[in-house]
Amino acid sequence: MTKHPIEHVIAKADTAIVHEDFDTLINIYSDDAVLVIKPGMNAIGKVQIRKAYEAIASHFNHTLHIEQAGMKILEAGDTALVVAKTVVSASNIPATERSATYVFKKNLSGDWLCQIDNSYGHDQ
Amino acid sequence: MTKHPIEHVIAKADTAIVHEDFDTLINIYSDDAVLVIKPGMNAIGKVQIRKAYEAIASHFNHTLHIEQAGMKILEAGDTALVVAKTVVSASNIPATERSATYVFKKNLSGDWLCQIDNSYGHDQ
Repeated sequence: MTKHPIEHVIAKADTAIVHEDFDTLINIYSDDAVLVIKPGMNAIGKVQIRKAYEAIASHFNHTLHIEQAGMKILEAGDTALVVAKTVVSASNIPATERSATYVFKKNLSGDWLCQIDNSYGHDQ
Repeated sequence: MTKHPIEHVIAKADTAIVHEDFDTLINIYSDDAVLVIKPGMNAIGKVQIRKAYEAIASHFNHTLHIEQAGMKILEAGDTALVVAKTVVSASNIPATERSATYVFKKNLSGDWLCQIDNSYGHDQ
């Protein structure tokens, strides 16, 4: 089955997180994007999101690893809802499955950008 | 705490579902909305969504009841992700909690419309 373009974007983001390539990572987000860092604490916009990922990388001793274990994508117009099972691991945490939810938006060039990143999903 | 406008829209939708007031219900959706009926089967657009709700009402012997048991709303620009615990019951099913996910979009008049309705959430 052909992969949805958003699956490629998420794979690119996961690789960028592992490599701490924050320039690539931040370009996957829209300018007004919101990232849930932890329940009740959000990073809003690219500057805050970049800082959040730098702090996350440090928090996990620069050993963060992310794997997708199943994904559903629902498209409506220029908006898509992604419901994913994401497995997160690092040297200081065991592999943990999270129910992640993302909203992507297609921009005028036809690229899908992440507008809402709720990696905590329902497990808050 | 003041309720988010989307909470009012969802409450209105839940009441409309219980009363089988499909005219009110369908106006909560955007023209290009997608409703997940069951895993792998989607209703797209108002005509299909209305037919789906008519079939759902009949399937549950016109006794469907919906209650929200907790909701988180994440806004970014004109888009909002809603992560909800929804309790569904009817004469032919016991009360069942579902992890529902919705994407709402603010239109030019400032009204929030449901664009993606994934009541099945992660429990697919």
